[in-house]
Amino acid sequence: MSIILTGGAGFIGSHLCAHFTKQKERVLVLDNLSRGKEEYLRYQTDQNYIDFQKIDIANIPLTALVVKEFHQQYPVDMVWHMAANSDIPAGTKRPSVDFNDTFVTTFSILEAIRPLGIKKFTFASSDAVYGDHGPEKKLTENTGPLLPISYYGAMKLASEALLSASAESYLERVWIFRFPNVVGTPATHGVIFDFINKLKVTPDRLEVLGDGSQKKLYIHIDELLEAMIFIVSNSNEKMNVFNIGPDDSGCSVTQIAESTVEIVSPKATIAYGTEPRGWVGDIPKFLYSVDKLSSLGWRSKSSSIEAVRKAIVEIFKQELGNDKI
Amino acid sequence: MSIILTGGAGFIGSHLCAHFTKQKERVLVLDNLSRGKEEYLRYQTDQNYIDFQKIDIANIPLTALVVKEFHQQYPVDMVWHMAANSDIPAGTKRPSVDFNDTFVTTFSILEAIRPLGIKKFTFASSDAVYGDHGPEKKLTENTGPLLPISYYGAMKLASEALLSASAESYLERVWIFRFPNVVGTPATHGVIFDFINKLKVTPDRLEVLGDGSQKKLYIHIDELLEAMIFIVSNSNEKMNVFNIGPDDSGCSVTQIAESTVEIVSPKATIAYGTEPRGWVGDIPKFLYSVDKLSSLGWRSKSSSIEAVRKAIVEIFKQELGNDKI
Repeated sequence: MSIILTGGAGFIGSHLCAHFTKQKERVLVLDNLSRGKEEYLRYQTDQNYIDFQKIDIANIPLTALVVKEFHQQYPVDMVWHMAANSDIPAGTKRPSVDFNDTFVTTFSILEAIRPLGIKKFTFASSDAVYGDHGPEKKLTENTGPLLPISYYGAMKLASEALLSASAESYLERVWIFRFPNVVGTPATHGVIFDFINKLKVTPDRLEVLGDGSQKKLYIHIDELLEAMIFIVSNSNEKMNVFNIGPDDSGCSVTQIAESTVEIVSPKATIAYGTEPRGWVGDIPKFLYSVDKLSSLGWRSKSSSIEAVRKAIVEIFKQELGNDKI
Repeated sequence: MSIILTGGAGFIGSHLCAHFTKQKERVLVLDNLSRGKEEYLRYQTDQNYIDFQKIDIANIPLTALVVKEFHQQYPVDMVWHMAANSDIPAGTKRPSVDFNDTFVTTFSILEAIRPLGIKKFTFASSDAVYGDHGPEKKLTENTGPLLPISYYGAMKLASEALLSASAESYLERVWIFRFPNVVGTPATHGVIFDFINKLKVTPDRLEVLGDGSQKKLYIHIDELLEAMIFIVSNSNEKMNVFNIGPDDSGCSVTQIAESTVEIVSPKATIAYGTEPRGWVGDIPKFLYSVDKLSSLGWRSKSSSIEAVRKAIVEIFKQELGNDKI
């Protein structure tokens, strides 16, 4: 059976694509290449097992047509839906970005598979669905209320809600992964990427948005991939919702800035802003429980800061043009 | 200051419209008349204070234009967003109904007001956002997880999420009302409406979908209106989320069927189905807390069955053509 992978040319999607094709599973990759790149599909991915279509998945009739044609030739068993706007601050300025790229894509791919009897669905959700519960409360998969403060988080929650209703109606099995920050290459955006590129322009000075106190959880892409595959293989409820991340309280922007400077440009000074938030919709600090995933039998080997430091080296190499993804 | 009222020609909206115009507040009513009717705006509504526009609010550029033109003439202070698909079983068969009418309408009206500096927003949400937590757990405004099982509930939750992100970004105050079943006239659909119309066709027999054990909370439109106005006047957080309903455990479909038969066609026999659910996405039984609203100082005077019995008489009169709304 084949797989549909949306956002397959993006950061996380391209790693999944490499994984599936190595296992000789045929993959239909749908991607609008807004941040993803076709070259991300060329390195580790076996080209014999991949069909790539550059389309805007928010285009409902076109997506339905492309999916139907592929399914007729290579019957599909499962969708991995990774397509989304991944630049949260961009969405804050223009709500239509997350409306279209993070939510309408979900509605569209579901409308495409509903008449075809494709009944398994995995979805890249986010810790941003929780909103701001303060720095003390440990967020589990059952935490409420869910009042996201970014459009990105809102449209991830909207997608989860749609999947939940679809599971009641026709999907057999849904896996929802709530990701923390994911780091590694190919990097297209994010705090490490920004710091490295700022240091390329001004090697003696790194300007940081916010006061550096923001603290978040980070996971490396290699471990995220492992966790997702593990969850799909080992959980079999109708709705399987899992926080994925390291079992720690995250690392601060100050730690990331200091590590980046140490690795990339050791003589640079760091200048911080005064606000505890970097942008509207950014949550300064929160605690996140991965107990459910630990109980299932998977634990992250790296802490947040270890994942970040590994990614700094990788992204630095990538930005120097030595990227060997 | 003026008001924008979406779904203003519908069941709940037309009561709000009458209320506002009686207070000499100018109202822009937007409604696609899919279930609402222009005549609902003619009875208790002061015509000097109403601007009615028949438009599909899911049409984003058209809505923005109509709202902007009205706002230039009569500056708007607040939106009451009641427009939605209100027929849950219809949405179960065609997800696009709730996608467009229940969710895209919310996105569209928000996009229309964002550039205009309109900063207060009230939203008709639903107990359907909670999903099925079983018959024992009392659902508060903070209950999680939120895994709705109908598309209607999913798109109400999606709308809540969008409002939450918008409150972080530019709205000053948001009131979210989670309604139970609302009954009264003008009725366009719903269990009482269906039972009365079935009895008009077969006065000696009432066929009931499901086994009659489904138990839900009911509030009469008059009390709902009172509760909404009370909440807006008395709660001033940035996000104000309230369950609205009677402080009881609801009444069963069997009780509604028996009351309808007693009032409408006393000699009819009642035939039940065998399933505990009437349709996909229907939740058989749940408990719902109105403690937050009680603490604020408002309590429903009628129980669920009292609200239902009052509505049966009203809807029966309406369907006999004696309706004096």
